[in-house]
Amino acid sequence: MILYDYFRSSAAYRVRIALNLKGLDYQQHAVSLVAGEQRGSEYLALNPQGLVPALEVRDGITLSQSLAIVEYLDEVHPGPALLPPDSLGRARVRALADIVACDIHPLNNSRVLKYLTGTLGVDEAAKLDWYRHWIAQGLTSLEAMLHEHPATGSFCHGEEPGLADLCLVPQLYNARRFECDLAPYPTLLAIDARCQALEAFREAHPDNQPDAG
Amino acid sequence: MILYDYFRSSAAYRVRIALNLKGLDYQQHAVSLVAGEQRGSEYLALNPQGLVPALEVRDGITLSQSLAIVEYLDEVHPGPALLPPDSLGRARVRALADIVACDIHPLNNSRVLKYLTGTLGVDEAAKLDWYRHWIAQGLTSLEAMLHEHPATGSFCHGEEPGLADLCLVPQLYNARRFECDLAPYPTLLAIDARCQALEAFREAHPDNQPDAG
Repeated sequence: MILYDYFRSSAAYRVRIALNLKGLDYQQHAVSLVAGEQRGSEYLALNPQGLVPALEVRDGITLSQSLAIVEYLDEVHPGPALLPPDSLGRARVRALADIVACDIHPLNNSRVLKYLTGTLGVDEAAKLDWYRHWIAQGLTSLEAMLHEHPATGSFCHGEEPGLADLCLVPQLYNARRFECDLAPYPTLLAIDARCQALEAFREAHPDNQPDAG
Repeated sequence: MILYDYFRSSAAYRVRIALNLKGLDYQQHAVSLVAGEQRGSEYLALNPQGLVPALEVRDGITLSQSLAIVEYLDEVHPGPALLPPDSLGRARVRALADIVACDIHPLNNSRVLKYLTGTLGVDEAAKLDWYRHWIAQGLTSLEAMLHEHPATGSFCHGEEPGLADLCLVPQLYNARRFECDLAPYPTLLAIDARCQALEAFREAHPDNQPDAG
């Protein structure tokens, strides 16, 4: 498999963690978002949306959208499950993942920040406020849903890392880059620390990618 | 089941379509987003995130996040499947759904528009440009992924409506409300028309909800 990724893309970071947790072999093909390679004709032929990540699972078949890719990997590759066995558990884990993937990350990715500062002429301080506002909204929800919930364990759901954790950790990485105050989220920080102790998460970290600057 | 919804919430609209396609009975409990009821303590006890929709599937068990709810309904209630039987097909359908749910809708919902006009002081014209920009970006991607793709049929994937369609139709409803030019998306419009012909979609339409103004 070939993962088209970019070291700092948090959606790609999710897929790297999933591939590592499953112990799957993959090659990485860096798509420089800074150089605009995601809008080049070569990449658009693979992923018409022009976003990373994309995963070529076999010749001519390339999947896009990080959560759809992770669900595919979980269906096709046995081994550590990334979703719990029961439907209510899966609904909980998917909801936690979607808070990151639908309600935080889309508002703070680079194309949106560019629109704010470029087209709308928002200054650096207001851009930071925007970033931190959506982080705080989303992480407050996550903390409320995880704290003292009977299904929360060492990880977001039980004692093994899964779909919710592989969304949470890259989101916290982003939050730290933008110096967000994480003190109000002790449950999230404890889960994050347990994830960071695992090789699958460490090897997926942006700093450890071949294209890290 | 009790669906906590709001007639104009496009995420709630998705879940209404899914419930109707499955032929499931449900009561509706309107949560007025205009009156701020989603942030009231009563609703927050059900859904700590304070967003609609939420679905109480049985006493004391309430699910949140529209896509997680639809996946749950598809797992638990047999009948017309909302996802295809093969993993590659499911990955395609989930990616199409996520383009709407992660890359278009989160940028254009009411809390974000309020931040733009309120906190950032963006004027009405610039707000409309923002709205239409993200609609155009996302719908262009969807059109590229659906047009002439061998798996596209009468609906986004094959000959039965499913998860991708129930995300697409509410997104097009929003696009029309904000008078976006939809001419560049003939494949999307054709699928939308086929969906609108179905009772499950018509009954889920915002205009046909008890709380429609």
